[in-house]
Amino acid sequence: MSEDTTEELMGATYRALCKHGYASLRMQDIADESTKSKAALHYHYESKHDLLVAFLEHLYEQFEADIGADCGDDPATQLVTFVEDRLTPRGDGQKEFQTALLEIKAQAPYDEAYRERLTEFDQLIFDRLRSILQRGIDHGVVDDEIEPEDTAAFLVEHINGAQLRNVTVGASLETARHRLRTYLTEQVLVASEMEHSDE
Amino acid sequence: MSEDTTEELMGATYRALCKHGYASLRMQDIADESTKSKAALHYHYESKHDLLVAFLEHLYEQFEADIGADCGDDPATQLVTFVEDRLTPRGDGQKEFQTALLEIKAQAPYDEAYRERLTEFDQLIFDRLRSILQRGIDHGVVDDEIEPEDTAAFLVEHINGAQLRNVTVGASLETARHRLRTYLTEQVLVASEMEHSDE
Repeated sequence: MSEDTTEELMGATYRALCKHGYASLRMQDIADESTKSKAALHYHYESKHDLLVAFLEHLYEQFEADIGADCGDDPATQLVTFVEDRLTPRGDGQKEFQTALLEIKAQAPYDEAYRERLTEFDQLIFDRLRSILQRGIDHGVVDDEIEPEDTAAFLVEHINGAQLRNVTVGASLETARHRLRTYLTEQVLVASEMEHSDE
Repeated sequence: MSEDTTEELMGATYRALCKHGYASLRMQDIADESTKSKAALHYHYESKHDLLVAFLEHLYEQFEADIGADCGDDPATQLVTFVEDRLTPRGDGQKEFQTALLEIKAQAPYDEAYRERLTEFDQLIFDRLRSILQRGIDHGVVDDEIEPEDTAAFLVEHINGAQLRNVTVGASLETARHRLRTYLTEQVLVASEMEHSDE
């Protein structure tokens, strides 16, 4: 399959998930969002499940490219930006997409292929946070009494919970973002770089 | 419907959800877990959806009774116990049940009746935490610089995230509980009651 076709089908899958959710999604709904026929889709992907596994892989690659390398910026800024980005809706249909993604997450316990892909996402976010926190400690901008591993896991849990609560009971993502920023400022980052400039 | 019949059907629904999950659950599966026929179930509940809404209401009442009144115990102990209880598997099939409950949560954005019931749960946990935190401040065992409302919401988010991560990627609930306890001890509770016994 050409790269253009892959891109097109992944875009169509995204739009179809936003429109129909996961549970009632049919291959025809995805075909309707693309220039391809349902038969053409089935030529590339045996089932809706196969296509969605490929879609999760595609999302992962995009996400990995998006977050770029862990270097450059000041680790304090990088930490706040990375965490806030996870709780900031981007583009059209982000709420609908998060909703469909939650349906896929809810299938993960029954579905090894989904679970593996979601575990990769979880691990990538965890690794990135741990690495930023470690650099933050090395640069004296993150409290050196925290354990990067524990705090990274705590943040991953928290991001998951804020997203879940937003989707299921409509809790504000903005307020959640604000609370998490307060946590970072008061509990993770050192009060001010000036105080620790000699570290 | 007699109270005994309600109890029986709610128990049957719990067991059927643990066995089959939510998506593929049929009224027959619930009947199979009870002494009633599928026709008898349909006499009381028009659809699987109606039965599950009643089930969520039943869970809520049970939960409300379980957590009892907010009084008596030392607020510091009460806070830690309440939070840890949310992340402690209880009884058989708890993991399976959490999995089915996540499927229902994932349907909440599409389903007002589910969303209303889940919002009640969320609100109950939030209210209880806020009230414990306020009593903790009044008793000098909770840091009086925290905002009970913000910290309660932060804890609700965190509990949601730890449960979600446990179900979807199999992250350890025990480790999550330990991390959250550390957060409570280091950031929410005052270092020791002795230091603040004059408050």
